Amino acid sequence: MAPDPLALEIAKNPHGPLFLAIAEAITRDILRGRLKPGSRLPGTRALARELGVHRNTVDAAYQELTTQGWLKAEPARGTFVAQDLPDEMTPPVTIPAPVEPAIVRPPLAFTDGAPDPKLLPDKALARAFRRALLSPAFRTGVDYGDARGTPVLRHALSSYLASDRGVVADPARLLITRGSQMALFLAAKAAVKPGQAIAVEEPGYPLAWEAFRAAGASVQGVSVDAGGLSVAALEEAIASDPRIAAVYVTPHHQYPTTVTMGAARRLQLLELVERHGITLIEDDYDHEYRFEGRPVLPLAARAPADLPLIYVGSLSKLLSPGIRLGYAMATEPLLSGMAAARAAIDRQGDAPLEAALADLIRDGDLGRHARKARRIYRVRRDVLAAALTERLGKRIAFDTPAGGLALWLGCGEASADVWAERAGKAGLALLPATRFTLGRAAPQALRLGYAALDEAQIVHAVEILARSLPR
Amino acid sequence: MAPDPLALEIAKNPHGPLFLAIAEAITRDILRGRLKPGSRLPGTRALARELGVHRNTVDAAYQELTTQGWLKAEPARGTFVAQDLPDEMTPPVTIPAPVEPAIVRPPLAFTDGAPDPKLLPDKALARAFRRALLSPAFRTGVDYGDARGTPVLRHALSSYLASDRGVVADPARLLITRGSQMALFLAAKAAVKPGQAIAVEEPGYPLAWEAFRAAGASVQGVSVDAGGLSVAALEEAIASDPRIAAVYVTPHHQYPTTVTMGAARRLQLLELVERHGITLIEDDYDHEYRFEGRPVLPLAARAPADLPLIYVGSLSKLLSPGIRLGYAMATEPLLSGMAAARAAIDRQGDAPLEAALADLIRDGDLGRHARKARRIYRVRRDVLAAALTERLGKRIAFDTPAGGLALWLGCGEASADVWAERAGKAGLALLPATRFTLGRAAPQALRLGYAALDEAQIVHAVEILARSLPR
Repeated sequence: MAPDPLALEIAKNPHGPLFLAIAEAITRDILRGRLKPGSRLPGTRALARELGVHRNTVDAAYQELTTQGWLKAEPARGTFVAQDLPDEMTPPVTIPAPVEPAIVRPPLAFTDGAPDPKLLPDKALARAFRRALLSPAFRTGVDYGDARGTPVLRHALSSYLASDRGVVADPARLLITRGSQMALFLAAKAAVKPGQAIAVEEPGYPLAWEAFRAAGASVQGVSVDAGGLSVAALEEAIASDPRIAAVYVTPHHQYPTTVTMGAARRLQLLELVERHGITLIEDDYDHEYRFEGRPVLPLAARAPADLPLIYVGSLSKLLSPGIRLGYAMATEPLLSGMAAARAAIDRQGDAPLEAALADLIRDGDLGRHARKARRIYRVRRDVLAAALTERLGKRIAFDTPAGGLALWLGCGEASADVWAERAGKAGLALLPATRFTLGRAAPQALRLGYAALDEAQIVHAVEILARSLPR
Repeated sequence: MAPDPLALEIAKNPHGPLFLAIAEAITRDILRGRLKPGSRLPGTRALARELGVHRNTVDAAYQELTTQGWLKAEPARGTFVAQDLPDEMTPPVTIPAPVEPAIVRPPLAFTDGAPDPKLLPDKALARAFRRALLSPAFRTGVDYGDARGTPVLRHALSSYLASDRGVVADPARLLITRGSQMALFLAAKAAVKPGQAIAVEEPGYPLAWEAFRAAGASVQGVSVDAGGLSVAALEEAIASDPRIAAVYVTPHHQYPTTVTMGAARRLQLLELVERHGITLIEDDYDHEYRFEGRPVLPLAARAPADLPLIYVGSLSKLLSPGIRLGYAMATEPLLSGMAAARAAIDRQGDAPLEAALADLIRDGDLGRHARKARRIYRVRRDVLAAALTERLGKRIAFDTPAGGLALWLGCGEASADVWAERAGKAGLALLPATRFTLGRAAPQALRLGYAALDEAQIVHAVEILARSLPR
């Protein structure tokens, strides 16, 4: 195989002859570590053409370096960087070997609620990418980016949201993002001025807090009870902190406690938000995963049309955490503000992925995958609940979640942190409630994201859980 | 085909019989516009299962609505929303039809330097996506996101940068972003505190200014001359404005003037940056497109190892504006700062695209495409230069750019803005220098991004240019 072309830097008007300047450039690269011992140099003709000099000049440079011992000419094979560079010539700047962060993780882990990447419909996705990339529309459309995302996906999402959860979203009011993380950052950019605050559930979702802070907002924790965010506590917080300009809530499956906000409290929340004129940010991160009962429609499906609202969702939970595709539906001027901020940090969307997912939605592949995943996760949830009851019985307390990909486990007498530490040593990673609080005392509880574990792994994990229960 | 499942919201304890609650929910959806006239409803058995009620209950609800005229039962075909809803029943809230921003553009346009999307190697890309998605590594690796991007792509880029341009970049010091826009935003987040300023070239790159402002930095224009950024002017700016904590520069092909910064000035710039201890942000946005002369290595290839430096590049210029893939190489603690900010706004990278592009680089497809594109664009550049000289001769002034995808045209006596306005009316979009300035007087010049036009279009465009030259 041919060697990589060199990219020598040679002084325009070298002192002394040009061949020496070339020789110097080559030694610099050897010292810099760019040219490794034993690596082959381009032929003199090729390098001469590349540098726009006469071939004899390059010949002279190679000769010189061979004489000095930097290069080794091997008849009929070519010229190579010498293997045995004298010690005093070894690179002064040694390039450290690539250090990757070792993903140290116990063999088993209850995640914070991630789906199972093994269920990724990769063949359907690969087909969709192919169709998207080879379609004439892609070639012509690909250079005109809309900060709100590919129109075809916004239209597909619009129908999907309407039929799946009663959210009537004009495609022009939809913004496609890279995962919900970006949607939350943009929401804060649009809804809050630097110095203002966003009221958040506590315990709640720390990554949302990070996104809000990155946007210049501060976060104000509001307590959560068995019915989700406490509207009374929110009322107090707003009364005592005039900086609060928005509230962030996860009513469908509260993160991390998994409880669903009831109809009465939803109405109270909407009324309060409207009365105080603050922005409502609703995160419906895993709406698709509902196992029992009647569908609970998002606040966005019943909010008055003039309420400042940002509804955030994600397709990543449906496919795989690595497939980053989130979206937001917002009222004006919030949507325009989000689109402007998006243009500034990211210009436009991910054309191939967006076109591919539009294809998946239109073909019904996404819906089929959702139904399949729902069946599988429901079984895993039931296995988890049964195993917990059987092995830990009265020592713990939990409600089998009606939806979502995690179970909130009350630790009874035990300390959640101690339990997590002991389980970690025994090879099971756990997330205690202290991971989800700002400052207030955390309940003694664990969030058990079970979806990525198969039945056998769940039973094994519960076994470790039981064995590591603090006395 | 089966109708979409409904997502009815029914009060938990309805006043009166359940079938009426169901009927009300359906009428609500009709009024809300979610159920369109003529659309088919699910069968009573399916809806009963979905709602967890007895089939007779749904039958009763459908009966009731048929009697009221909301629904129309068609024997053997199913139940439909009535086409002829009485006027007083038409939706009070009318959903506006999707309004897409019409991409109004003249048939011809000189862009700001975008590549030709028609050259996108779509088949190779589709193959690469397929290989990436179906590889076992993808399934297992896809859930563990590194805020710096997929390791395999960082390793591929590392060798690519070393052999292509003498930049020795340890993969651990590389950060993959969605296009260089995000890299610039993250660079400002990491390099300057809110309230501090970044010195930028003027005329310069407005999208970079937007990214910097979004990160809380202000921008301070520094003049550009025939040798690129004026180091003397930068020195003055730093002396008079203590807020300046970084400088943003495009030394390879200055944006928008296309001039290449010479060796002497590069050394002055490095010396000045080091002396003042400010961060150097080098944007090498189209390094690959060099048509003549010896390769000019980036500042990053010769900067002292301890200089606070962020080197930004992009693969989008090589492939298509719609393929968003940028990268940054930075010294510590800048890289960690960028990675942390990235996690907060975007969590992690685009696994499928990153794996696919790593594949393209390893297979040499990217290199082959670059060589092919370079040949094509060089011809287009020469056609443009020849046509300009032939049709406009002495009325204009320009240097044929040694690289990049645009030509900077001096307008002589004419006003660039007037010329752009007249050409626009004649069907040719132009970008006058006023588009690239902050406040200082703009030169009478146009940036002619020619790469997306084929030879015939270029000749035609120059024809319009000549015809619309202001008297």
